[in-house]
Amino acid sequence: MNLRRPLIAIDWGTSSLRGARLGTSGQVLEARELARGILSVPPGQFEAVFHELFGDWLQSPDALCLISGMAGSRQGWQEAPYCPCPAGFAELGQHLLWLQPGRIALVPGLSCWGTDTLHTPDVMRGEEVQIFGALQLTGRDSALLVLPGTHSKWVQVQGGRVTRFQTFMTGEVFALLSQHSILGKTLDLGSAFDDSVFLQGIARSQQAGSVLHHLFAVRTLGLFERLSAAQLPSYLSGLLIGEELRAQTHAHTQHSAGPVMVIGSQALTLRYTLALQHLRIPCQSLGAEATWAGHFALASSC
Amino acid sequence: MNLRRPLIAIDWGTSSLRGARLGTSGQVLEARELARGILSVPPGQFEAVFHELFGDWLQSPDALCLISGMAGSRQGWQEAPYCPCPAGFAELGQHLLWLQPGRIALVPGLSCWGTDTLHTPDVMRGEEVQIFGALQLTGRDSALLVLPGTHSKWVQVQGGRVTRFQTFMTGEVFALLSQHSILGKTLDLGSAFDDSVFLQGIARSQQAGSVLHHLFAVRTLGLFERLSAAQLPSYLSGLLIGEELRAQTHAHTQHSAGPVMVIGSQALTLRYTLALQHLRIPCQSLGAEATWAGHFALASSC
Repeated sequence: MNLRRPLIAIDWGTSSLRGARLGTSGQVLEARELARGILSVPPGQFEAVFHELFGDWLQSPDALCLISGMAGSRQGWQEAPYCPCPAGFAELGQHLLWLQPGRIALVPGLSCWGTDTLHTPDVMRGEEVQIFGALQLTGRDSALLVLPGTHSKWVQVQGGRVTRFQTFMTGEVFALLSQHSILGKTLDLGSAFDDSVFLQGIARSQQAGSVLHHLFAVRTLGLFERLSAAQLPSYLSGLLIGEELRAQTHAHTQHSAGPVMVIGSQALTLRYTLALQHLRIPCQSLGAEATWAGHFALASSC
Repeated sequence: MNLRRPLIAIDWGTSSLRGARLGTSGQVLEARELARGILSVPPGQFEAVFHELFGDWLQSPDALCLISGMAGSRQGWQEAPYCPCPAGFAELGQHLLWLQPGRIALVPGLSCWGTDTLHTPDVMRGEEVQIFGALQLTGRDSALLVLPGTHSKWVQVQGGRVTRFQTFMTGEVFALLSQHSILGKTLDLGSAFDDSVFLQGIARSQQAGSVLHHLFAVRTLGLFERLSAAQLPSYLSGLLIGEELRAQTHAHTQHSAGPVMVIGSQALTLRYTLALQHLRIPCQSLGAEATWAGHFALASSC
């Protein structure tokens, strides 16, 4: 696969901004990572900030620029309406929001709809590019994927299109509990990850009952000195990631289209891989390379 | 049932302090409620604060004084070791920690042990008095009880003894999510309770999946304007209380010893009663009267 022109790929999130200049065969020529998430940009200043940060790259007259992530949200540069699922490259390409026709576009997020009485929507912004990148890199067109993070996404892909997905507030709930709850009083957040204690949390979370109950164990295991302050963050992480996996295990069993693909930072993919292996669910992991591969594949299709 | 001497009943919790002076047949002669929870008392000052607040009541030379709640914790007046379950009045009476022999005692909390590999403990302090009070008031000796709050307790009683219980962090998680999470940005915490939206949350929480996913609906239903900022707190409350009930419904089915007893403030017992009725689980509710009845019954047995 080759592009006829250079690509500027931007992943502009809530708290950080990453960019890469790609050559016509997709190779990364130069990459930048900046603490300039959309929350740091005053309304109306997105274009100016963007040119300030990437003006040198934009001097290439035939460059195409694709911007994914929260820059396309209501709080961002301009709102790019969600592309409804099922959605593949074609649908995503049709829903690009061109800021400069043929030159700079915002990649829309995806939406899907629940089967509950309120038809509750679910949404993502930015992850869709990583998903399609991962499919390209692995040559798969069906998969169950997880993108762990503040708001983890579990995604089903069939025939190259995202058919449905679910968001889990795992990362945010971990942060809230460890920083603001009574559990925070007894745990040492600076401690090293303990994989054996993490897996005890995973095992506990698979038992009958509720995560709202299991969480209280972090308090009592500390009070009764069964686990140390240094071990408790790993246990809490196991309980929460395990709850996410408990809910998704049946999806994998139903789906069963090869190993679960875990896409994210090294620290998080390590935890999910450990947990999935413990539950005897095959998996493979990918990192940041999925993002640029996704931008490149999208650029090739539009 | 009659006592031969007056009783001073104290429920000394983390953030508040309640006291009642009871007559020999258990009638409340005088009650006080003060914002003097144990967190407001400097170490070593418990006796002085107690005499400052209740010195007049203690002038009665034959009065017995029972103090339940967090005053008996490690952070309180003195640590009263937990009484292990199964425990009834007799066991609780044997585990009283006498601060002045025959005159002032701390009521111990209860502990029980999970069946997981870590034999995770669970604990309560203060609720045990309410539980035994509720049994006295209703004349029951077997029941499934719930005491909603920051940390809700679900309790099984058989033959007049607490056999096991589980803590759920429901109230604390509600507070964290509504005050510190991304969900807090779109909900109006000052709004009135909406029972129909609350029951939609209850219904959603009974569906397959995970509460970590269901919670994200509070965000998207707000974003897509399906529910208003005023309705979202009731929906969030329904999701969390519903998760607690989902985990306990089978306990009731197994147990099936008459209606579930809900003990707590009027605002919370209303919500639990609504939810239980919606799930066709019979229930009855009790308020603060259970606390004083428990102290009185305990005093009669010791």
